[in-house]
Amino acid sequence: MNDPMNETMSAAMSNAVREETRDKPPCKDGHLVIIGGGEDRKHDMEILTRFVELAGGADANIVVITAASQIADEMWDVYDKAFGTLGVENRRHLMINSRQDANSEQFVRQVDEATGIFMTGGDQKRLLALIGGSALDAAMHVALKRRGATIGGTSAGASAMSGHMLAQGRAEILPEKGSVSLGAGLGFLHRVVIDQHFSERQRLSRLLTVVAQNPYLQGIGIDEDTALVVAMGEGIEVLGAGAVTIVDGRTMITNVADIKDHTTPELIDVRLHLLPAGSSYRLPKRETEPGKGLPPPLLDFLENVTKRNPIS
Amino acid sequence: MNDPMNETMSAAMSNAVREETRDKPPCKDGHLVIIGGGEDRKHDMEILTRFVELAGGADANIVVITAASQIADEMWDVYDKAFGTLGVENRRHLMINSRQDANSEQFVRQVDEATGIFMTGGDQKRLLALIGGSALDAAMHVALKRRGATIGGTSAGASAMSGHMLAQGRAEILPEKGSVSLGAGLGFLHRVVIDQHFSERQRLSRLLTVVAQNPYLQGIGIDEDTALVVAMGEGIEVLGAGAVTIVDGRTMITNVADIKDHTTPELIDVRLHLLPAGSSYRLPKRETEPGKGLPPPLLDFLENVTKRNPIS
Repeated sequence: MNDPMNETMSAAMSNAVREETRDKPPCKDGHLVIIGGGEDRKHDMEILTRFVELAGGADANIVVITAASQIADEMWDVYDKAFGTLGVENRRHLMINSRQDANSEQFVRQVDEATGIFMTGGDQKRLLALIGGSALDAAMHVALKRRGATIGGTSAGASAMSGHMLAQGRAEILPEKGSVSLGAGLGFLHRVVIDQHFSERQRLSRLLTVVAQNPYLQGIGIDEDTALVVAMGEGIEVLGAGAVTIVDGRTMITNVADIKDHTTPELIDVRLHLLPAGSSYRLPKRETEPGKGLPPPLLDFLENVTKRNPIS
Repeated sequence: MNDPMNETMSAAMSNAVREETRDKPPCKDGHLVIIGGGEDRKHDMEILTRFVELAGGADANIVVITAASQIADEMWDVYDKAFGTLGVENRRHLMINSRQDANSEQFVRQVDEATGIFMTGGDQKRLLALIGGSALDAAMHVALKRRGATIGGTSAGASAMSGHMLAQGRAEILPEKGSVSLGAGLGFLHRVVIDQHFSERQRLSRLLTVVAQNPYLQGIGIDEDTALVVAMGEGIEVLGAGAVTIVDGRTMITNVADIKDHTTPELIDVRLHLLPAGSSYRLPKRETEPGKGLPPPLLDFLENVTKRNPIS
C-alpha cells in the first residue's frame, strides 16, 4: 500500500537509526554495584573502593544522586568525604529537587561525562518520582549500556535499579498477601525485584510475599554492607560483609490467587540460593563452554541479571 | 554352609518373631502433634483441643512428661488445668527426675495405658538425657505404632521427636558452619530435623545451617501456637496461628565441606515450602491414585514424615 505518511515516517526512522549508528561510540558494557545499605564509608570502604575502581580509579568522574533523601546535603557530605578519601578528584553532587532538575541540560551533561553514578539511600519512591522517565534517567541508561559506566546504588538506590521496584511493604514474620506494593523502577535489570537491609531487617517474608504474588520476578535480598556487583553480559560477584539471597518462585505451587488479602499463602517448591561475600560467577561462553560448572538455577539467574537490555 | 551357631541364632530369631507376632495386638497408627511452642493454653486452646480429640476426647487417658523442664511442677500445673478444662478426667503427671524413673515399672505402665502422651517445653537435651533409650521411650514407640496413641510435644518436646535432634545452636542472621549441634532424639520421625518458635525467633538461618551440613535431613520449622499434626501412614495437617516451613537441601549445591567453621556457606537450589495453618495433605493411595494432586517435592516430604517406622 502506497501511504506517503508511512513512507515519510519510515524515512525519518531510518534517518534516526543512521543518526544513532553514526553518533554512538562502540558499545561498552558497564557495571551495577547494588548495595544493601549501610556500606562502610569510613574504615575499610571495601564496596566503595570497588565502585571507584570500576569507575576508573583516581581518574573516575563520579556524580552522586541524593534525590532519594530528604537530607540531600548531609548525604552528599558523607559521600563527598568518602570518595575524596578514595582519591577521586572529580566528584559532583547532582542536587535534584524537581523533575525540571532531572531534565536540566546541566545535570544531563554531567551524567553524560560521568564514569560512575552513585544513588544514595532514602526513599525509592521519592527517587523515582523525581528522576523516573527523565532525561537524566535516559542518560544513565546510555552511560551503563553504551559508555561502560558504573552505576552504584545503596538501600533505596539499590531497590530503584530494577524495572519492577519494591516500593513499600511491612516485613511481617510470615508472608502476607497484599502487604507489599511494587512501583516502576529505573529498569537497569528486569525480571527481578531487589530488597535491601535484608538479613538485618528479616525481610525474607516480605520478599516471599512479592515473589508469591509476582512469580515472574526473581527476588534478590542484599544484606547491609554487602554488594551484588553485576558486570553486564559477563557475570556477578558478591562482596562485603554479608550475603545475597535469591528467591525463585517460577516453579512454585501456591494458593495465593485464591486466598484473601492479609492472609499467609501456601508456597511449595520455592528455590532459594544464598551467595555469601566471595561468591563470584562468570557467564559461560555459549559456544565454547555451555553451562560450564554452573548449576542450572544459578545459570538462569545469571543470564537474567547480566542481560544486555536495550535502552528503554 | 552348615554353621550350627548361625542355625541356633536363626532359631532364636524366629522364636522372637513368633513371640512378637503372637503377643502384639493388631497394629493401629497413631498421631504426632508437633507444636512450635507457646500454644494457647487458656483461651481458644485450638491445638490442645485437637490433641485431646485425637487421644480420645473425654475418654482420653493423658500422661504429661515434664522431664525437659527444670520447673516440672509448674509445667504440670499449666497442663493439668488445660486438659482439665478440656474435659479430660484421666490425666497424670509423670515426674521423671532420673533414668531410674524413666525405667520404672509404674511410669512404663502408665504410658502403656495412655492414649495421649504430652511432652512439655524446656531443654530437649535434658529430656533425652533422662528418657532416651529407656523403657519409657520404648513404651512410647509401642503406644504410637501399635496402639494408635497420640504423642504431642511442644518446643523442646517438638524438637525431641525426630531421630536427629537439633540440640542447640545460635540463630545468627546468616547460616554459619559449625554453629549448630545435633543429638539423638526419640526417633518417631526420621530424615528430618525440627526447630520451633521458628518465625518468631527468626530461625531460618539456623535451620539452613543444619540442612547445609546435613542434607540427608529435611528441615521443619514450626511457628509458635502452630502444630504440624502427622497421622502416621495417612497425611499431615497444619493448625494454629502460624505456619510450618520446610527446607529441603537434597538437590542443593554448596561449598560447605570446603569452608572454615564460623563462615557462611554458599547454598544453591534449596527448596523451601511454607504451609500455613489450614494446609492439609493426605498421602495418595499408591495403587489407585499415585501422586494425586501432590507436587512431587511435597509428596516426598509427606511420604517421609508419615512413614511407619519399625519400633526401634
